[in-house]
Amino acid sequence: MDRDGTMVNSTTTSSKELREATLIGLDWGSTGLRTWLIGDGGQVLRARQAPLGASMLSGEAAWRQALEQFSGDWQRARPELPLLACGMVGAQHGWREAPYAPCPADAAALAARMREPGPEGLRIVPGLLDDPHEGTPDVMRGEETQVFGALALHPELADATLILPGTHSKWVRLRGGRVLGFSTQMTGELFALLRRHSVLAKLMPDDETPAEPDWEAFRQGVDTARDQGAGEGLLHQLFGVRALGLTARLAASASADYLSGLLIGHELTVGVATLLPVQPLALVGEPALCRRYVEALKHFGVHEVKQLDNTAPAGLWRLARELELA
Amino acid sequence: MDRDGTMVNSTTTSSKELREATLIGLDWGSTGLRTWLIGDGGQVLRARQAPLGASMLSGEAAWRQALEQFSGDWQRARPELPLLACGMVGAQHGWREAPYAPCPADAAALAARMREPGPEGLRIVPGLLDDPHEGTPDVMRGEETQVFGALALHPELADATLILPGTHSKWVRLRGGRVLGFSTQMTGELFALLRRHSVLAKLMPDDETPAEPDWEAFRQGVDTARDQGAGEGLLHQLFGVRALGLTARLAASASADYLSGLLIGHELTVGVATLLPVQPLALVGEPALCRRYVEALKHFGVHEVKQLDNTAPAGLWRLARELELA
Repeated sequence: MDRDGTMVNSTTTSSKELREATLIGLDWGSTGLRTWLIGDGGQVLRARQAPLGASMLSGEAAWRQALEQFSGDWQRARPELPLLACGMVGAQHGWREAPYAPCPADAAALAARMREPGPEGLRIVPGLLDDPHEGTPDVMRGEETQVFGALALHPELADATLILPGTHSKWVRLRGGRVLGFSTQMTGELFALLRRHSVLAKLMPDDETPAEPDWEAFRQGVDTARDQGAGEGLLHQLFGVRALGLTARLAASASADYLSGLLIGHELTVGVATLLPVQPLALVGEPALCRRYVEALKHFGVHEVKQLDNTAPAGLWRLARELELA
Repeated sequence: MDRDGTMVNSTTTSSKELREATLIGLDWGSTGLRTWLIGDGGQVLRARQAPLGASMLSGEAAWRQALEQFSGDWQRARPELPLLACGMVGAQHGWREAPYAPCPADAAALAARMREPGPEGLRIVPGLLDDPHEGTPDVMRGEETQVFGALALHPELADATLILPGTHSKWVRLRGGRVLGFSTQMTGELFALLRRHSVLAKLMPDDETPAEPDWEAFRQGVDTARDQGAGEGLLHQLFGVRALGLTARLAASASADYLSGLLIGHELTVGVATLLPVQPLALVGEPALCRRYVEALKHFGVHEVKQLDNTAPAGLWRLARELELA
């Protein structure tokens, strides 16, 4: 199973794990595939991952082969287990399109669109569309599953705002366990672009993220966005990273974290303004990134934030249960 | 002279042109070198250009060779002509650092820092630093020469705001012929990054800029920035380009121009707010790009804008005159 060297966990699945499994779940994104053997309540019994994302796969055979490679042994051992996937696998250019479900939407609304199994028995979670009468429409694909996983694990979040930081950060408004609407911000992708390809990259010593961020520089970036962001604008403040570097106000080693703070600060300026009065607030995602949001939120007066790690397996289990498959 | 195929104009300089010249001028930026044989009043008698920018040159010999290759014949024919250069040639990692002059600054203040000729007799125009007590500092290098060129050609701009659109768009406040201060916005660089490297690039059919922009899409982007920019934020509206594409509200062929309008609209939202009461307004730069700004400015109620093309040769001539060299 690890013949291409991409498996994180190559040890054999135990017969106990196979016996306890209620579901095979997949999060099949643009750049990676994660597969899970999932037990009752959504807990992960065994996890695998590979850099075999939707953007790398072309043609029916490639999808089929990837699925076989990373969950074929589980399917053969327990052929009756339901097979559910979320993410770009259901995009227009994925394996099978699972059209966006409109907001507001709850788990039942998503499940209703998954009754018919797709290729190889795989059921694909639809993405969500938020289409306000005024303003720009918004879409998500993959994060909706994390949202319903967070709700399965923490029913008290039924009336809350969830932030899912990442390449495309999502702010999700929940009311009565339904997704009322959401807003995406391109924070993570813009950071990566600027960090790697822009004139700012030249200021920054290397492409490695240090173990511990420069919190002072990060907070300075957050405050700059919060206090002068509206007047100066993001486009000006981005160039300011360069000007601060050229005038020796900002050390080269601190500039990436200042930039990170600046971008997250701009995200929070918009997000926090739309936040209240819906509470509580929870962060769902990679812990190191969530920690930056926790720090930044303090500078916006938000001190109570629940933190959850990857809730996609619990979300897949929740949807399987809604379908009475798990 | 055109042995490396990079010369735009390879015909021989005429003896009349050499006779009328009062100055050899260079605009030596990050990615390109432009050299001019400049006559009285700043008019260009002969122009050459090559992709031999500061970022491609390393070591004294490389700079010397590039200078010789693109102006050596002029120097030998008229060894008494002053040699002036602006741009990244004077940056910290350029040929010789010409430290930033502080704002406010007029032509005399820049000239005072150029009395001593540098390598090969080359005088290098210092960049400008705007260092407000509050807020982010700002820098320019190269554009200051265009500003003083615009003033030399159009003395009525002594009290005005100049916009120099480009990779790093500059908004320059002039009062009594002095640069009071300025503000840079990273509009052009961000457009190029998003157009080429981001998730938005996948929506856009090819990397060619069509002869004529899709003005309707461009104006839609401008209006979206103007009307919902503050509430939604740039980071959200950038993702909106993708959402509009995925939901078929925006044709693939229109998305690059919508993005261009969105970014310029955000620039203008900040810029126009700081504009009044200083008038008139002038655009200095590449005509096709300036046309986008003229269109966008109309959506901000600004209908009278003077347009100037490259004024760097006139700026170099103006500074040479200030030094009593031309």
